[in-house]
Amino acid sequence: MLDALFKPKSIAIIGASNNPLSIGHIVMQNLLDHNYQGPIYPINPKSNTIKSFKAYPSITDVPDEVDLVNISIKNTLVPTVLEECGKKGVKFAIVHTAGFKEVGKEGLKLEKHIVEIAHKYGMRIYGPNSQGIQNSDPEISVYANFTFVPMFPGNISIVAQSGGVGETLKLHLYLVGMGLRMYSSYGNEADVSLNEIIDYYGQDEDTKVIMVHLETLKDPAGFLEVASRITPKKPILVVKAGKTSEGVVAVGSHTGSMIEQDTLADAIFKKSGVLRIQSQEEMIETAVAFSTQPLPKGERVAIITNTGGPAIISVDECVSAGLKLAKLSPQTKETLGKLLFTEAIISNPVDVVATAGPEQYGGTVEALLKDPDIDSLLLVFVTSPFADGVGIARKLSEIGKTAEKPIVCMVLTLEERWTKLIPLLRESSIPVYDFPETTSKVLSSMTEYGKILQREAPSYKKYEIDKRKAEIIVNRYKGEKKFLLQDDVFEILQSYGISCVKTKKITDKGELEKAAQEMKYPLVLKVDAEKIIHKTDVGGVSLNLKDKEALLADFEKMSTKFAKEKPGFILQEHLTAGKEVIIGLKGNEGVSPTLMFGLGGVFVEILKDVQFRLAPLSEGDALDMIRSIKGYPVLEGVRGEKAVDIDGLAEILKRLSQLGSDFPEIDELDLNPVFAFEQGKGAAVVDARIKVSRT
Amino acid sequence: MLDALFKPKSIAIIGASNNPLSIGHIVMQNLLDHNYQGPIYPINPKSNTIKSFKAYPSITDVPDEVDLVNISIKNTLVPTVLEECGKKGVKFAIVHTAGFKEVGKEGLKLEKHIVEIAHKYGMRIYGPNSQGIQNSDPEISVYANFTFVPMFPGNISIVAQSGGVGETLKLHLYLVGMGLRMYSSYGNEADVSLNEIIDYYGQDEDTKVIMVHLETLKDPAGFLEVASRITPKKPILVVKAGKTSEGVVAVGSHTGSMIEQDTLADAIFKKSGVLRIQSQEEMIETAVAFSTQPLPKGERVAIITNTGGPAIISVDECVSAGLKLAKLSPQTKETLGKLLFTEAIISNPVDVVATAGPEQYGGTVEALLKDPDIDSLLLVFVTSPFADGVGIARKLSEIGKTAEKPIVCMVLTLEERWTKLIPLLRESSIPVYDFPETTSKVLSSMTEYGKILQREAPSYKKYEIDKRKAEIIVNRYKGEKKFLLQDDVFEILQSYGISCVKTKKITDKGELEKAAQEMKYPLVLKVDAEKIIHKTDVGGVSLNLKDKEALLADFEKMSTKFAKEKPGFILQEHLTAGKEVIIGLKGNEGVSPTLMFGLGGVFVEILKDVQFRLAPLSEGDALDMIRSIKGYPVLEGVRGEKAVDIDGLAEILKRLSQLGSDFPEIDELDLNPVFAFEQGKGAAVVDARIKVSRT
Repeated sequence: MLDALFKPKSIAIIGASNNPLSIGHIVMQNLLDHNYQGPIYPINPKSNTIKSFKAYPSITDVPDEVDLVNISIKNTLVPTVLEECGKKGVKFAIVHTAGFKEVGKEGLKLEKHIVEIAHKYGMRIYGPNSQGIQNSDPEISVYANFTFVPMFPGNISIVAQSGGVGETLKLHLYLVGMGLRMYSSYGNEADVSLNEIIDYYGQDEDTKVIMVHLETLKDPAGFLEVASRITPKKPILVVKAGKTSEGVVAVGSHTGSMIEQDTLADAIFKKSGVLRIQSQEEMIETAVAFSTQPLPKGERVAIITNTGGPAIISVDECVSAGLKLAKLSPQTKETLGKLLFTEAIISNPVDVVATAGPEQYGGTVEALLKDPDIDSLLLVFVTSPFADGVGIARKLSEIGKTAEKPIVCMVLTLEERWTKLIPLLRESSIPVYDFPETTSKVLSSMTEYGKILQREAPSYKKYEIDKRKAEIIVNRYKGEKKFLLQDDVFEILQSYGISCVKTKKITDKGELEKAAQEMKYPLVLKVDAEKIIHKTDVGGVSLNLKDKEALLADFEKMSTKFAKEKPGFILQEHLTAGKEVIIGLKGNEGVSPTLMFGLGGVFVEILKDVQFRLAPLSEGDALDMIRSIKGYPVLEGVRGEKAVDIDGLAEILKRLSQLGSDFPEIDELDLNPVFAFEQGKGAAVVDARIKVSRT
Repeated sequence: MLDALFKPKSIAIIGASNNPLSIGHIVMQNLLDHNYQGPIYPINPKSNTIKSFKAYPSITDVPDEVDLVNISIKNTLVPTVLEECGKKGVKFAIVHTAGFKEVGKEGLKLEKHIVEIAHKYGMRIYGPNSQGIQNSDPEISVYANFTFVPMFPGNISIVAQSGGVGETLKLHLYLVGMGLRMYSSYGNEADVSLNEIIDYYGQDEDTKVIMVHLETLKDPAGFLEVASRITPKKPILVVKAGKTSEGVVAVGSHTGSMIEQDTLADAIFKKSGVLRIQSQEEMIETAVAFSTQPLPKGERVAIITNTGGPAIISVDECVSAGLKLAKLSPQTKETLGKLLFTEAIISNPVDVVATAGPEQYGGTVEALLKDPDIDSLLLVFVTSPFADGVGIARKLSEIGKTAEKPIVCMVLTLEERWTKLIPLLRESSIPVYDFPETTSKVLSSMTEYGKILQREAPSYKKYEIDKRKAEIIVNRYKGEKKFLLQDDVFEILQSYGISCVKTKKITDKGELEKAAQEMKYPLVLKVDAEKIIHKTDVGGVSLNLKDKEALLADFEKMSTKFAKEKPGFILQEHLTAGKEVIIGLKGNEGVSPTLMFGLGGVFVEILKDVQFRLAPLSEGDALDMIRSIKGYPVLEGVRGEKAVDIDGLAEILKRLSQLGSDFPEIDELDLNPVFAFEQGKGAAVVDARIKVSRT
C-alpha cells in the first residue's frame, strides 16, 4: 500500500533551505503553492526558520508523526538521516538526491545500503535520484516534487521513468486544460517500484486513464501481472524508449540482447492489453479522449464536417488506422435530407457545408448518435464568418454531455476571435484537436481498447503430455549452455505431442536397416553429435535418399567421415510438399518465454515478418499470431493454391507454449522448418534445435 | 505571370456589401485590416457607399484601371459581370462563387463558359469556388481572401487545394509566430493552375519554402516540370490526401484506378525532389526549420540535452528516421571535459545536466558546431529552477544567429514562468518544438532535402535501339486495347535490346523442328493467339520439354486443342537458375510512364514490396529502385548465395524506360518473370505481355 506516499498525513523536508535554488526549498514551495492539506516540518540543523516555518534540527525532534520525508541532502549523508527517520517511524522517504546506482559500483553499494536501513525499520525508499510524487486529490493536494508545471485535479495519472518525459507529459496535459490525478517519477527504483505505482493507480477509483513512460522493465513478470489486472478496468497507455539499438545504448541497459528487450516488452504489452503508443504527443491526445469519452462499441466511424479537405484527410487516416467508414442508415439519410441545406453532401463524411448553423450541425450529430450502425463520431469543425460558430459549439457542448458514443473533434478556429468556443467544447467533455490526422489516430486507439475490453476471456488448453520424459532429458543438459542432441530434441517434442516428421534414432547399420523398413523412401540421414552443430555445412546431412542402396552408401560415408566424433544418426522421412514456417521460443529471465512465428527463410531473415507473443498462448493468441504476419495470405493459399492447416500450426504453437512454460530453463528452441500441409493434414517439424542454458 | 493576381495595383470587389456575413464584405474588411496598398473599388448597383467607400454600380463605372476583381455574386450572374470586367481590361478575376464544376454537368458547362469569356478578353479566372490569395509583401499587403487568420510577413508560401486545409496550415504557422509570404487556395482550377502558382512562388525571391496541399494533380506533367525546376532552389513540401481507396472516393476523383493515382503522384514527387510529408502538423514543423535554418551537409547528428529521457527518445527517433549519431572528435571531448560539470556525460547525446548554465550549455553547442564530423544539432532544453534558463536561451540565441549548421530545439518550459525564453530562441531563428519526436523528424526531412540537393545531375543513357521495328508492331495494335501476341511482344523487347530468354516464333511443325535444332533442351512451348490470354489456365503452356519427342508430342496436342484459334506458337529455352523478379511499366495520361520493380510472386502480390519511379530512369534511379525494395538482400545473396547481376537488371529497367518514353501509347507492360543470374551473367525476360490502349 502506497497510501502514506501518495496521501501523506504529514511531510518533513530534510534539506529544507532558504536557498531558492535548492530542491528542499522548491519542494516546500510547491507544497505551499498547492495548498498541501497536512502539516509540513522543515528539517535543517542550521536554521530556526524556513519560510516562516519553525525548522527542526533533526527528524527526531519533530513532535508529531511523519508519514513522508523528502530528502535532498548529500548522498553520503543519506544513511544517517534514514536511520533517524526509521527510528521516528517515518513510512516513506522520497530520496531526490543523486549519486547512487547511476554513477557506478560505489553508488550501487550505497543504494543497497540505504534500502537495507529503510527495511530494517519497515520504511520504504522512493528513488533515489527521483523527482517525487504528486496527488491532486483536494483532500490531500500534495506536490512533493521539485518540478514546475502547476497541478489541478483531473482523472489522468502519470508514471514516468524519466523525469524529463514525465514533465513533458504533465506540461502538455496542463496546456490543453486537462487536470491530473496523480504523478510520479520514481528514479532508480531501488525499492518502491513502477509496478507498485501502476497497481496503486489501478486501484484508485478517481484515476480513469494511466499514462506510463518506460525505458526498461525491471520486473517484467510483475508488470505483466499488474497490467493484466488493471487493463480490464482502465486503459494503460505506454510510450517506451529503447526501440533502436542506439536507443538501448542510450538507456544504458546491458541485459539481454538489444532488440530482444523491446520485443519482450512489446509481447508483454500485447498480452496484458496495454496500448503502446508511438509518441508522447499522441499519448497525451489519446489520454484526453479516454479521460472524457465513452468507448466505441465497434470500428464504424461517421465523419461530420463543414469543410471538405480536412474531412478527406480524416478518411485516409481513419481507414489507414483500421477503422471502417460507417454506412448511414436510410432513416438517418432521410432525417439529414430534411435538416440540411441543399448543397450539403449526405454521405460519410457528411458535409453540412460552411453556412450550416447550430441547428444543422448539431442536428446532424444527434441523428448520427441515434444511428445504430455508427460506433463513433469524428467532427471536423471550422469556424467561419458565415455561421454562428459559438452557437454550434454551444449546441455540441449540450449534446456532448449525454452522448453515449465517443465524439472527438478537430477544430479550426482563431481563439482570439471565437474566444469561448474551445472551452465550451471542452467543458462538455468533447476533446478538441488541431489536426484531422491526430483526431483519427485517437479514435483508432479508443476503438482498439474497446476491442480489448470486448475480447473473450482467453481459454488455455492444457494438453495431455509426458512431462516426466522431457524432464529427464532436459535435466541432463541443465547448466551446460549447449545444443541438445537431435535425438533428444525430437524426443522432447514428441513427448509434448508436437507433430514431427517421422524420425528414428539409430547408432549402427543394423538399426538403420530396421528403421528404414518402417519408413517411406525417400529418406534423410543426419549425423548427430554434440560437437557437430552446423551439420549441413560439414556434409552431415543427406537429403532425398531414394532407396536402400543410396541410404547405406551415405551411412558408410558419414560413419567414416565422423568416426572421431562417435556420432549417432537420425533417420527421417523426406517431405517435399508443405509450406515452410518457422516457430521459435525464447526463454526470458523472470517471465514466461516468448513464442515466435513467421514464414520460412527470407520472410523472417530479411523482411522481419515475424510475430511474438508471450506464453502461455490461448487459443486466440495462437491464431492471432499466425494471422498477424504480413505474409499470412501465403498460408491461406494464393493463385488457387489450397490453404494450409492453420489449426495444425496453432496446435504446435500452443503445445510449444506449454513446453516452454513447463521448462523455463530452455533458453532457445527453434523449429525450423515446420512443414504446414493442406487443411486437415496438420503440420510437422522437420528440423529443430534446443539450447538449455538457464538453471 | 501572375503579378496582377498576387501584386494587384488595384482591386474591385464585385458583390461588395454592407452585410457582414457576405463574402464581399469580409474580403473588403480583410483588405482594409491588412492595409492593402492599392485602391479598393466596391461594386454594388444598389448602394452608394460600402464601408465609407464610394460604391460603383458596375465595374465599367470605375474611373481607374483595375488589376484584380473579387467576385462573390450568384453563379448565374457571373458571365455577364465577366464580360464587363473583360471590357474594362481587368487582368484577373478571383471567383469565390460556388455552383460550378463541383455541382455537376450544368455547373461544368457554366465553368467552361466563364473561362471562354475571360480568355476572349485576355483575362484570367482564379477559381471558381475558390478562397482567394494573399501576399504579405509590405509594398502590397493584399488579403484578397475571406478567411480569418491574421497575416504578417514571412518567407513561407502556401498553396492548398482545400481551403480548409490551407487555413489549418496558415493558422498553425501563425500560432508558432511564423510569418507567411504568399497564400492561395485555388478552388476548381478552371484556369489559373496549381502549377502556375507553384512556379510563381518558385520565382519569388522572398519565398524560401513552399508548402502544398493536394488531393488530385490536374496536370501531372506540368507539376513534374515546374517542381523539378524549383526544388534545386527551395524545398517544396507536400501533403497529399487520397492515400486510401476510401480517401480517393472522398476526393471525388474518377480517373484511373484508385491507388494508381497516388502511386503516380508519389513517383512524380520522387522524380522532382518534392518532399512528401505524412501529416499537416509535421509539414508545418518542417517548414519552420527550412524557413530559418541552413541545410545539413550530411546525416550525422549530435544531440545535446540537460535531461536524460527526452534525449533517449530523440536517439530512437533520429535513428529510425535514417540519421546517424555523430561520433564526437577527441578534441571536442577534451573541450567538453574542461567545460562541463563532472556529472555531465560526454558522449552523444551530450548530457550537460540540469544544473548547467549558459556557459556550459552554450559552450557545448559552440564546440559541437566546430566539430567537422557533425552535420546537425538537436537540442533538448528543459528549464528548471536550478539553472538560468533565460540565460541559456539568450546564449543560444546569440549562437543561433551565426551558426552554419542547422540547430533544432525541443524546449520544455512553462511560458507563464520563463516568459521570454521561447521568443528569444525564435528571434535567433532557432526553431522550437514541443516534443523530441517532432524535432527528430524535422531534422530528418532537412537531411533528406540536403541529400537531394547534393545528388549528382542525373545521367540518362540513350541506348542504340531499333525504334522503327517496334513502331511498326505497336502501330498495328493502336487503339485496340488488347494484349499483343507473344511473338510481337518479344520482337519489341528485342528491338530495344532487352535481354530475353531465347525465343522463336513458329507456325508449323517444320519451323518447330528447325527452331529446336538451334536451341538447347529442355524447351518450353507456348500457344500464341489473340483470344488466348491466360495460356497456362487453358493448357497452352508446356514447360520442361526434355527432348524432341516430348516437344513434338505436345506440339501435336496443342495444335489439335487450339485448332479453332489458328494459333501461332512460341518456343523458348527453359531456364531454371536465376532469381525471379518482376519489372513493369504503366502508361500515364499526359506524363511519362511509371516503371515498377519488385521480387517475384508473393513479394509483390502480398507483401507489396514494390518500387515505382517515373520514366526516364537515370543510372541512379534504376539502381535506387532495385536497392529500395525491402527484399533487396535476397538479390545480394543470402546464406552464402552469390549476388545476382544488379547491373543487368538495371539495364533492363533503363531500356524499358526508353521504350516506354518512346511509346506513350503502351498502357501496360509486364515482364514477369525476369530471371536474374549471377553477377556478370545478366538477366533475361522469360514471360512478358504488352497492352497498347492509348492512341
